[in-house]
Amino acid sequence: MWYFHVLSDGAAFTSQSRSSLRSYANSCHYRWQSSKSDSSGVSNSGESSKESSRCSTPVLDTDRTDRLRDKMKRRIESGDHWFSLEFFPPRTASGAVNLISRFDRMGSGGPLFIDVTWHPAGDPGSDKETSSMMIASTAVNYCGLESVLHLTCCNQTKEKITAHLNKAKRLGLKNIMALRGDPIGEDWVEEDGGFNYATDLVKHIRCEFDDYFDICVAGYPTGHPEAESYDNDLRHLKEKVDAGAHFIVTQLFFRAETFLRFVKDCRAIGITCPILPGIFPIQGYHSLRQLVKLSKLEVPEEIMQVIEPIKDNDAAIRSYGIQQAVEMCKVLLASGEVPGLHFYTLNREVATIEVLRQLGLWAEDPRRPLPWAVSAHPKRKVEDVRPIFWASRPKSYIYRTQDWDDFPNGRWGNSSSPAFGELTDYYLFYLKSKSPKEALLQMWGEELMNEGSVYEVFTNYITGQTNPSGHKVMCLPWNDDPLAPETNLLKDELEKVNRRGILTINSQPNINGKPSSDPIVGWGPAGGYVFQKAYLEFFTSSENVTALLQVLKKYEPRVNYHIVNVQGKNITNAHEMQPNAVTWGIFPGREIIQPTVVDPVSFMYWKDEAFALWIEQWAKLYEDESPSRMIIQYIHDNYFLVNLVDNDFPLDSCLWQVIEDMFALLDSPRETQEEGSQL
Amino acid sequence: MWYFHVLSDGAAFTSQSRSSLRSYANSCHYRWQSSKSDSSGVSNSGESSKESSRCSTPVLDTDRTDRLRDKMKRRIESGDHWFSLEFFPPRTASGAVNLISRFDRMGSGGPLFIDVTWHPAGDPGSDKETSSMMIASTAVNYCGLESVLHLTCCNQTKEKITAHLNKAKRLGLKNIMALRGDPIGEDWVEEDGGFNYATDLVKHIRCEFDDYFDICVAGYPTGHPEAESYDNDLRHLKEKVDAGAHFIVTQLFFRAETFLRFVKDCRAIGITCPILPGIFPIQGYHSLRQLVKLSKLEVPEEIMQVIEPIKDNDAAIRSYGIQQAVEMCKVLLASGEVPGLHFYTLNREVATIEVLRQLGLWAEDPRRPLPWAVSAHPKRKVEDVRPIFWASRPKSYIYRTQDWDDFPNGRWGNSSSPAFGELTDYYLFYLKSKSPKEALLQMWGEELMNEGSVYEVFTNYITGQTNPSGHKVMCLPWNDDPLAPETNLLKDELEKVNRRGILTINSQPNINGKPSSDPIVGWGPAGGYVFQKAYLEFFTSSENVTALLQVLKKYEPRVNYHIVNVQGKNITNAHEMQPNAVTWGIFPGREIIQPTVVDPVSFMYWKDEAFALWIEQWAKLYEDESPSRMIIQYIHDNYFLVNLVDNDFPLDSCLWQVIEDMFALLDSPRETQEEGSQL
Repeated sequence: MWYFHVLSDGAAFTSQSRSSLRSYANSCHYRWQSSKSDSSGVSNSGESSKESSRCSTPVLDTDRTDRLRDKMKRRIESGDHWFSLEFFPPRTASGAVNLISRFDRMGSGGPLFIDVTWHPAGDPGSDKETSSMMIASTAVNYCGLESVLHLTCCNQTKEKITAHLNKAKRLGLKNIMALRGDPIGEDWVEEDGGFNYATDLVKHIRCEFDDYFDICVAGYPTGHPEAESYDNDLRHLKEKVDAGAHFIVTQLFFRAETFLRFVKDCRAIGITCPILPGIFPIQGYHSLRQLVKLSKLEVPEEIMQVIEPIKDNDAAIRSYGIQQAVEMCKVLLASGEVPGLHFYTLNREVATIEVLRQLGLWAEDPRRPLPWAVSAHPKRKVEDVRPIFWASRPKSYIYRTQDWDDFPNGRWGNSSSPAFGELTDYYLFYLKSKSPKEALLQMWGEELMNEGSVYEVFTNYITGQTNPSGHKVMCLPWNDDPLAPETNLLKDELEKVNRRGILTINSQPNINGKPSSDPIVGWGPAGGYVFQKAYLEFFTSSENVTALLQVLKKYEPRVNYHIVNVQGKNITNAHEMQPNAVTWGIFPGREIIQPTVVDPVSFMYWKDEAFALWIEQWAKLYEDESPSRMIIQYIHDNYFLVNLVDNDFPLDSCLWQVIEDMFALLDSPRETQEEGSQL
Repeated sequence: MWYFHVLSDGAAFTSQSRSSLRSYANSCHYRWQSSKSDSSGVSNSGESSKESSRCSTPVLDTDRTDRLRDKMKRRIESGDHWFSLEFFPPRTASGAVNLISRFDRMGSGGPLFIDVTWHPAGDPGSDKETSSMMIASTAVNYCGLESVLHLTCCNQTKEKITAHLNKAKRLGLKNIMALRGDPIGEDWVEEDGGFNYATDLVKHIRCEFDDYFDICVAGYPTGHPEAESYDNDLRHLKEKVDAGAHFIVTQLFFRAETFLRFVKDCRAIGITCPILPGIFPIQGYHSLRQLVKLSKLEVPEEIMQVIEPIKDNDAAIRSYGIQQAVEMCKVLLASGEVPGLHFYTLNREVATIEVLRQLGLWAEDPRRPLPWAVSAHPKRKVEDVRPIFWASRPKSYIYRTQDWDDFPNGRWGNSSSPAFGELTDYYLFYLKSKSPKEALLQMWGEELMNEGSVYEVFTNYITGQTNPSGHKVMCLPWNDDPLAPETNLLKDELEKVNRRGILTINSQPNINGKPSSDPIVGWGPAGGYVFQKAYLEFFTSSENVTALLQVLKKYEPRVNYHIVNVQGKNITNAHEMQPNAVTWGIFPGREIIQPTVVDPVSFMYWKDEAFALWIEQWAKLYEDESPSRMIIQYIHDNYFLVNLVDNDFPLDSCLWQVIEDMFALLDSPRETQEEGSQL
């Protein structure tokens, strides 16, 4: 069963007249029609500039700070078409994990927003990992996606609705799709003072939350199935907009002219806000039939004629669906009436992405505003500095800092943020490994022989080669994804050292001023330059650390290091409070951005997490007391976590030489190892 | 008459016993003897690091944040010898201007601190520009020098002393040299409850201001002239230290062994704080005789024997004085008992600098902590970002921001500082030109013929050539000093454009990663790299600006510009609130420092000052209604102030090409100048 918002809105099927909130309509009007762009290049500020307050922080990317309605406005003014993606909440916890991964993948294509349908039967406002609320919250907070949460009001008390909205606001959600929803049972009657129509919900949101939420409402290009007439339906859509909605997403349709006529009719009666067509790429015969039944839409004869003969050939139907959607979208975009396309994804990727690719709307090489995945929670919009340690676990970092009131920007050191939250639940669904236990055992070894078996797992992860049991190591407890393209630059060196027990979990090459558009290491606005100091982080034995410390003396002050074991014994040559910036960018007309630091304080929090992952994610795959488990436990108890920064970023990284020197020292006769007892 | 503190202290000439403040002595003791260095490379922070709060800001240079006592401690621990310089307040306003310039010059040699004597007859605590208080305040706030203010207590009420100390604290002074001072009249008697001895003053300071001030007291290597005995004098010195003094500066002496015996005797009775020898390079026969008379010191026979025969040869005596001081200082430093040398400069430069040079203590190539001159006011210690506009008028910038409560650090944009103060008094003594009116007229022209005469003045300033009347242009209203070495890099280009009416007042070349130790453009800690975007700021005619604007279209978005006239019409392609970082540095183990920005908001304040300088410093040299004055007035009324930033710092600056293109356009036939009416 699907939860299209299309099935949930009853705004248009009654002729009952309602007063419209003219003031909202006017202000909405004004916003959309104000022709003067704030971002115009030339301004005459004159004396008045003295009165203006300073900006609180440099803004790297207005997409992080603007409201959805303003983003749309900017895109409309600049003529850049956008797309958006609709998802429904999953039924199971593992479905939630998969959906979050899909958010990450589809988010990289550059949707302007995604939306999550409201599923009244699925406890949609609860804290369950499958609830609409939690899925939308995760999309915003952990995937950094501008998100619209659906909300239906039918059969709901005002208190319940307000509670949902308060919760949504608290979680950082900023946009609501206001829908009536389906009445329960056949004998539904309007309630006095209750929510009978989406318009009531729009009014309620504006009344209780003023301008906080951006509001979307549903439009029906062929009229709502329950509406008295198409014209009547249009008038009610106007009421919804007048009540304070900011944009319209339509029910799906099969012909471009259906939508274009609808838009023309909307404009004729004074609806001025953006109207986004709902696009449904046909993906299969049965799903189409079911949809048609539920939505009471008619599939045009010319489509049925194509589909019927191939109804048992899924691939053929999907291929046709893509072609049909692409052609219709081309007509829509060419009309000049369509600023963006809204896709009903059915939680699937292939067809939608293919349509977007063919339309040239899919961001093949997405520009990263910062080198790490940002969160879209409003309170994090100024955040532009993070410790490097969580580079491969950004969701964990967001989780552990979710209670902070302020987020570092400009500098890490300036933050007086509270401590990191405890990471006790390693199974929060957005942190959970995408691989089931069996797959992990196949990758990491059903049975470990010795520490060397562990070295092999790390090495195979780096090289991408299959292990003796024929499986590729696609992830590690510290890296839930295959090697980043940037890390690939270091692949040969990493392989060499992992083979010898330098178990690397994080690294970056030095970069001395590559263009910000560089496909591998670039980030930030166009026309800039990005820089990095070489970084290497690994677990290794105390024997290695003893030799390493002796070698590192030769690299003072070029190399900064922190070396810590699970008990928290920290050996460092860095200032105890001074973070070291390891990634920064210089951009036209902006202050310097330095998004990644090695911070001595947060390293102590990270090491707790990094050591715990040995046990939580790896050791626990094996029986208590089993040799495999004891090997992991031994490493956890005895190895050190080491990080190294080469400060001399314009030169070739010396960190590989440091490691080589360490092995050379270990291989040399005993007497040259003067300080063998240092640890 | 001289105001040596040596003449002002009566702590040691009475046998009256006083209770000593043991607790202070103990705490002082502890501080000096604590052997564990905070800056030790290796620390075991372990779990406890979780409790530590973040540093409020990265510290570029501990010399900016440490107290004087802590700086001494660090120097003693590292074995780096230091020097300090004593000055007395000037008698006239122009003497004050000269002394402030001397502070800047002698400050560049790297004194650990300077001190300013207290002149009871000269209204020392007043706001007069010649007062001890104002001179010390200027040294701290405008010259960035760690300063010690002398204070004498004899014949003063407690209220008066407290008021002086409160004022000193308010002005940002942190160190007091506590002295008794000379009794007025012959028949002075001790007052009950009054300040009879320096010890009383030390106690009072500690009692009223707790630990706020670092306190220095005077020591007498041969005993105070009025003391009962040398031993008695020593005991009273110990009382002063026990009362809470942090270090001792001694009266001058002529033989190293005098001082070394004194230190030995001090240590023997338990004085543990630093004892700094007062060094007096003999600079003339008469000044020596007067000193001897006032201080009741005896000049050793071996010195008199050298000096008497050459008493009319000033040069010979000065040369001998230097040689004698150098030899004595060498013995002192070699003894291991002397961490630093204190020089009685008599407000003269040559002899002291020569002695310091020969000792290798003068910083020939001073490292700049930041590319601009920092202020030593405690509330500015975190300041590390400034607009580039005041680069040649840092004292004006400090003055106009003196009322700010917070100073930008890390980023300019993060500051919510109050507005800039009005610069109504262009004759504040620390802003006053060092050149008198006559000299200015000689440099800038007794009579101007036309705008071209002004172009010539600018050009001569750049080239260093003499003008037709045979004078070099050593300064301009916007540049009180000759061209900076860095600007010299651009000399040829600057000459060319000034000749044609691009009247440059500020510029910097682009720098793509030079070592922080670079003698011309380097700044900040060792082992770092500094960067700059090319910057050019100039006045020019509206005709030029019209062409320039057309040319600049070709350089979007590479070049950012602000163009403003005296009325405040501002034409820009920059974000109205976004500062552009134009100088930054990357250092080992630190966050990025970006000390200079082009900020659109502060540029509007700067333009008021920059335009006003035409009138205040130049036009007013001429008679009302005179042609010369009217020419300057015309420029003031009609020219534009332009700033240009080339964002593409790794490439050769394009700013010269921009100017060339502008002239090419102006030289081209009319019809190509499409937008001639833009202004």
